[in-house]
Amino acid sequence: MQSEFQRIEVFKSYDLGRFLVIDGYIMLTERDEFIYHEMIAHVPMAVYPNARRVLVIGGGDGGTVRELSRYPQLERIDLVEIDSEVVRVCREYLPKTACGFDDPRVNLHFEDGLRFVQDCSEGEYDIIIVDSTDPIGPGEGLFTFEFYKNCYKALADDGIMVNQHETPFYDDDAKVVKRAHERIYKTFPICRVYQAHIPTYPSGHWLFGFASKKYHPVHDVRDEWEQLGIKTDYYNLRLHRASFSLPVYVERLLKECEVKE
Amino acid sequence: MQSEFQRIEVFKSYDLGRFLVIDGYIMLTERDEFIYHEMIAHVPMAVYPNARRVLVIGGGDGGTVRELSRYPQLERIDLVEIDSEVVRVCREYLPKTACGFDDPRVNLHFEDGLRFVQDCSEGEYDIIIVDSTDPIGPGEGLFTFEFYKNCYKALADDGIMVNQHETPFYDDDAKVVKRAHERIYKTFPICRVYQAHIPTYPSGHWLFGFASKKYHPVHDVRDEWEQLGIKTDYYNLRLHRASFSLPVYVERLLKECEVKE
Repeated sequence: MQSEFQRIEVFKSYDLGRFLVIDGYIMLTERDEFIYHEMIAHVPMAVYPNARRVLVIGGGDGGTVRELSRYPQLERIDLVEIDSEVVRVCREYLPKTACGFDDPRVNLHFEDGLRFVQDCSEGEYDIIIVDSTDPIGPGEGLFTFEFYKNCYKALADDGIMVNQHETPFYDDDAKVVKRAHERIYKTFPICRVYQAHIPTYPSGHWLFGFASKKYHPVHDVRDEWEQLGIKTDYYNLRLHRASFSLPVYVERLLKECEVKE
Repeated sequence: MQSEFQRIEVFKSYDLGRFLVIDGYIMLTERDEFIYHEMIAHVPMAVYPNARRVLVIGGGDGGTVRELSRYPQLERIDLVEIDSEVVRVCREYLPKTACGFDDPRVNLHFEDGLRFVQDCSEGEYDIIIVDSTDPIGPGEGLFTFEFYKNCYKALADDGIMVNQHETPFYDDDAKVVKRAHERIYKTFPICRVYQAHIPTYPSGHWLFGFASKKYHPVHDVRDEWEQLGIKTDYYNLRLHRASFSLPVYVERLLKECEVKE
């Protein structure tokens, strides 16, 4: 179907289960969405001590809030999705992913994420997760300097922002990686990149950005996370630490744009 | 062209450079072969202290011996490739990969790898690298119990065997991973699996096996490797250590077949 913002489609495949396609790009498949959603949600949650207030920008499929809903200490999970039709379609056709919306702590806001963070109070969130589409179409604003600055402001003094960061492998995508990293690096004192194997995304080699005001993603990861007994299929603490060790060519790519203002 | 053993083709693509296809499967592309070859060669070389004698089984494209030829301390690099036509085609069409054959320490043996290790003297090699095709067609024998046992015998008392191990993501490939891991686990006292992002291989998530009589792949990795000044684009020591931290679903898969005899 065509929403006000984009073309939303769900297909079914033999190997990968159902999959969500937006404007012709695969957003998730039932077969491997757990990798993306575990890696975007648990990495900041295992670092920030006792997070209570989380904002998810994008993520209308519900997978990220599903992972967040496993944490009993969370008091408030706000999700800002520009396109209410994405949520509706996912609730109907991708219930295993969209079940995250059933948690009463989840508040849905159908708004532009860029505007939403602009209007946030200072220090309103412990963690912001930018679960955006690619930087073309409605997701474009979520890769701007202004957006990152507003996220910084909306975060607590020890807050963490995590974002999906595209693949380093193909040249055009690598440009997006560099542009995003450059801007986040200038905005946050701690800025690192981590990786995961997501087979159905281009090249299968996917990056995430970890930006933080205080906590280091590897040195400050909390072993107590194990005690929560959260069931995962991809993420664990060993992998968390390892995922920040990047291939030489990716380190080189990121280094090129690490300039503080 | 059709050799005695298999169909060998080289194509050219816009994004990935030239690529080698054997029996319809992509074996390597010029664009990302560095990842596979660095990960299969440098991991054992950074663990074994001062290796002098290495055997490569398969690897007729020359990429693995190219990486090995960067080590001045190596005295002998034996390569056993069943199909001399693979070497001829790669020398002609993939010179950036096949340049490894120019090293005078490299001895080519056009024989069946299974038979070759059977006839080796005990303890003849410090490291054996099994750079095979998939376990269908001529590569099949290189996934058998008998082959792994012969490799064990041909290795020094502190020897290391490394092999390519397929992807854990698709069910059929995961069966191959399990079968190989089960057999190697029964043969060697130390048996671990490590991973890399290889975009042009199925799923992009590729595994390697590390089997060893004495050295642990992570605890015994030698920091002196840095001093060799070997130029790499994927591998470094941090990544070496990190590559042995596997996703939960892969750990589970391997655990299922870890039974000592």
